[in-house]
Amino acid sequence: MSAIKELREYFAEIMRLGYINALLNWDQEVNMMQYKSLEGRSKQVSLITKLTHQRITSDKVGKMIKEAEKLDLNEIDKAMLRDITREYNLATKLPEKLVTEIAETSILASKDWRDARAKSDFSIFQNILEKTVELQIEKAEKLGTHPDIYSTLIDLYEPGATYHWIANIFNPLRPKLIDFVKKLNSSSDKPDGSIFDKHYDEDKQFEVSHKIIEKLQFDFGSGRQDKVTHPFTTSLAALDVRITTRTTEPFPDCITSTIHEYGHAIYEMGIRKELHDTVLCTGTSMGIHESQSRMWENVVGRSKEFWMYWYPTFQEYFPENLKNVPMEEFHRAINIVQPSFIRVNADEVTYGLHIILRFEIEKALMEGKIQVSELPEIWNSKFEELLGIIPPNDAQGVLQDVHFSGGLFGYFPTYFLGNLYGAQIYAKALKDMPNLPEDYKNGEFSNLLSYLKEKIHQHGAIYRANDLIKRVTGEDLNSEYFLNYIEKKFTPIYRL
Amino acid sequence: MSAIKELREYFAEIMRLGYINALLNWDQEVNMMQYKSLEGRSKQVSLITKLTHQRITSDKVGKMIKEAEKLDLNEIDKAMLRDITREYNLATKLPEKLVTEIAETSILASKDWRDARAKSDFSIFQNILEKTVELQIEKAEKLGTHPDIYSTLIDLYEPGATYHWIANIFNPLRPKLIDFVKKLNSSSDKPDGSIFDKHYDEDKQFEVSHKIIEKLQFDFGSGRQDKVTHPFTTSLAALDVRITTRTTEPFPDCITSTIHEYGHAIYEMGIRKELHDTVLCTGTSMGIHESQSRMWENVVGRSKEFWMYWYPTFQEYFPENLKNVPMEEFHRAINIVQPSFIRVNADEVTYGLHIILRFEIEKALMEGKIQVSELPEIWNSKFEELLGIIPPNDAQGVLQDVHFSGGLFGYFPTYFLGNLYGAQIYAKALKDMPNLPEDYKNGEFSNLLSYLKEKIHQHGAIYRANDLIKRVTGEDLNSEYFLNYIEKKFTPIYRL
Repeated sequence: MSAIKELREYFAEIMRLGYINALLNWDQEVNMMQYKSLEGRSKQVSLITKLTHQRITSDKVGKMIKEAEKLDLNEIDKAMLRDITREYNLATKLPEKLVTEIAETSILASKDWRDARAKSDFSIFQNILEKTVELQIEKAEKLGTHPDIYSTLIDLYEPGATYHWIANIFNPLRPKLIDFVKKLNSSSDKPDGSIFDKHYDEDKQFEVSHKIIEKLQFDFGSGRQDKVTHPFTTSLAALDVRITTRTTEPFPDCITSTIHEYGHAIYEMGIRKELHDTVLCTGTSMGIHESQSRMWENVVGRSKEFWMYWYPTFQEYFPENLKNVPMEEFHRAINIVQPSFIRVNADEVTYGLHIILRFEIEKALMEGKIQVSELPEIWNSKFEELLGIIPPNDAQGVLQDVHFSGGLFGYFPTYFLGNLYGAQIYAKALKDMPNLPEDYKNGEFSNLLSYLKEKIHQHGAIYRANDLIKRVTGEDLNSEYFLNYIEKKFTPIYRL
Repeated sequence: MSAIKELREYFAEIMRLGYINALLNWDQEVNMMQYKSLEGRSKQVSLITKLTHQRITSDKVGKMIKEAEKLDLNEIDKAMLRDITREYNLATKLPEKLVTEIAETSILASKDWRDARAKSDFSIFQNILEKTVELQIEKAEKLGTHPDIYSTLIDLYEPGATYHWIANIFNPLRPKLIDFVKKLNSSSDKPDGSIFDKHYDEDKQFEVSHKIIEKLQFDFGSGRQDKVTHPFTTSLAALDVRITTRTTEPFPDCITSTIHEYGHAIYEMGIRKELHDTVLCTGTSMGIHESQSRMWENVVGRSKEFWMYWYPTFQEYFPENLKNVPMEEFHRAINIVQPSFIRVNADEVTYGLHIILRFEIEKALMEGKIQVSELPEIWNSKFEELLGIIPPNDAQGVLQDVHFSGGLFGYFPTYFLGNLYGAQIYAKALKDMPNLPEDYKNGEFSNLLSYLKEKIHQHGAIYRANDLIKRVTGEDLNSEYFLNYIEKKFTPIYRL
């Protein structure tokens, strides 16, 4: 057997261990709120993590890589070897003890974070967060991919990206976004969001969210939709992609977040069969992943044409709230731009400011310039600086997201990159298919889906994000597309 | 570290792999009816099975066992070494290829079995069942624990039991049960079961079943109850014990089967902490396990005193069906003894005949005396011989149970052993605490639970079934207790 084929088979088992770990986590989120069960689960996750690490770091892998490097490889095998080599190089730098300690700590931190958030008491979370930060810094130092720790961590989620590359993109956007939010809010004819203060039946919310993704061709033969407190998407096999939905937040969070998770899932479901069970059977970066989810959620899912099709259904589901509300008003309401405390509920314009806040805080935290104990205070003061408001408590401030407890420092910036990638890709799609918005009016969403599948989804992780965006749009990432998009969209909504 | 402590830690990881496999299976049953996802899942189960097998069969284990044998061990460590040695001896006789083939085949067989049952078409299942039978025969031959194949398989579920030991118990019961069923049905004042032909709301069924096990002290902090098509119990960690319930069958199947699964779960939940993460952290045999589930389901859960407490609640839940039905009549109705097609819905008296049927068929199948293709016909003719009726189709005949698809030949007899063990244990409990039935009238079930916990549950697998039954009741398994129990219970219900 050729070395590349051997590697492929060897890593198929590593992929499977990853899927098993994903199930352990999915089940914890969806089914296990019982803390007594968590200890056993934490040891199981730690075991699978250890076995995975042992397998990746085996000398055998190093030898196979060397052999494979000598071969004349096709495009897919080349990409596979690139990612296997990356995995191997990363893993061999980390001692097994550190890897399992990180896995176990994240399960326990998740518990403390939940408790802390429920009681809005940061002190419950502080100890384990300090440990989590230490472990991540240790990990980044051992990896040493980049001269600075934060870039090393960012690179794990957005291969090739660095702190400086991102800062160069985010920094000019910072003042522009702040100004644009102010400009919109100076309007004398702002949308009215009071329809969302009303009660929307939770079962009906779930039902209609299900209906939408069914129409959008989510394949329930190779995926599921479940209820949970924090929505997420995870792959438990190439053809077992699960999304989760919450119905407890103010309407229409359930709808928009379900479409968001759909965007992630449909990317994974669209990867071509040839790549199944290989390291390439995944989105190519978190930023590109987020471009898909946020494009469906916002660019499509909050567009006027989308609602021209769906609004009558919603009026039927919630007549008591919507019967007398014109579609136009509803569409304006779901596009309100307003500084708010919770990132996942933020509108398309202020969302980037939430991310910039985390980006700046994480950078300082990873460089030891701020301490964990200072986080609540720094969070609040930065929040005021960027969004002009101060969170009333830590549950709505520094404790709101799961990411810190998972030790996912470096992940946050990819969310905003996703908005930027998404706007650029969508602009190209619109250029290639100017009729798209007309399609939506008629409940026809498959043209966009087929386009994304062909250009992006099917390729999995073959192309790195920067190559992919160039292949699809003909140029490097350019945030002008996003700025144009929000200006063109929100100026009329705010009647400016 | 001493060899026994080393073994303990080494096998803790093997237990964890087992729990992970249990989650893969639980999730498949509860969440994955989508066939596209099954291929990935089958490979994951196969991988964990392989890793477990590699770990158990490692030379290191053999060496540690030899070292540990030299030590002066306490009772628990002795039992632990006994079971580790057993696992090692069994596993080292099976090649890895066979083990993973069995695991993968059982996942795929489960799919074909479902299809076959849904369409009541045995031919869909026949091919994979043939393979399953071959693999089990091959496995038993390789294990060679007993001179005959069926005993080797039985021993896997009921350590120490053989075909002949069980046949010696079942054979005399066979005609006695057939006669007793006939005698009861000769009564001129039989109970009337027509109240169960009515519709019972599925959500309410689930709700009240939940209420009952809550009262019976099922710990929802270390377990769950979910809806599924075939009820079962599984442990995903010492403190993560999950039961499943179905609400689709005729009432009161949901109630009785939930209490049944509760009986399994409460056994697992009651194992003392000292044994957690060791090979002893499990019920000691399937027969003893079933004694607990069937005692709660039938001896307690179908007793008059149980219903004196619960019936008013049921009348409140289902007034349209039960308001005008006296408790006495309801109690008689849930104790109807009548030949029927489906084992899991069978009454306490005919149940044993269902098991004897499978016991005799499996014996012949394992010895090659009958072929898979003949199964439907043989099933039906034996059914007539034992129960006097012929299944109208294979879905209600040979295709009804999941066990064949899982390759679990040798498992079935433990169900009836459970009835026998249960009756004997309960007779002793009643002797020690004559007030038990009075307790039930007042909704007091914790005295029995504490008794079982102290005498049975806490010990996990320390004592083998035959030792345990002697410790608890002072004598070997004696089927007279069961015969006395059914005679004393059913004669008045049938007004004979």
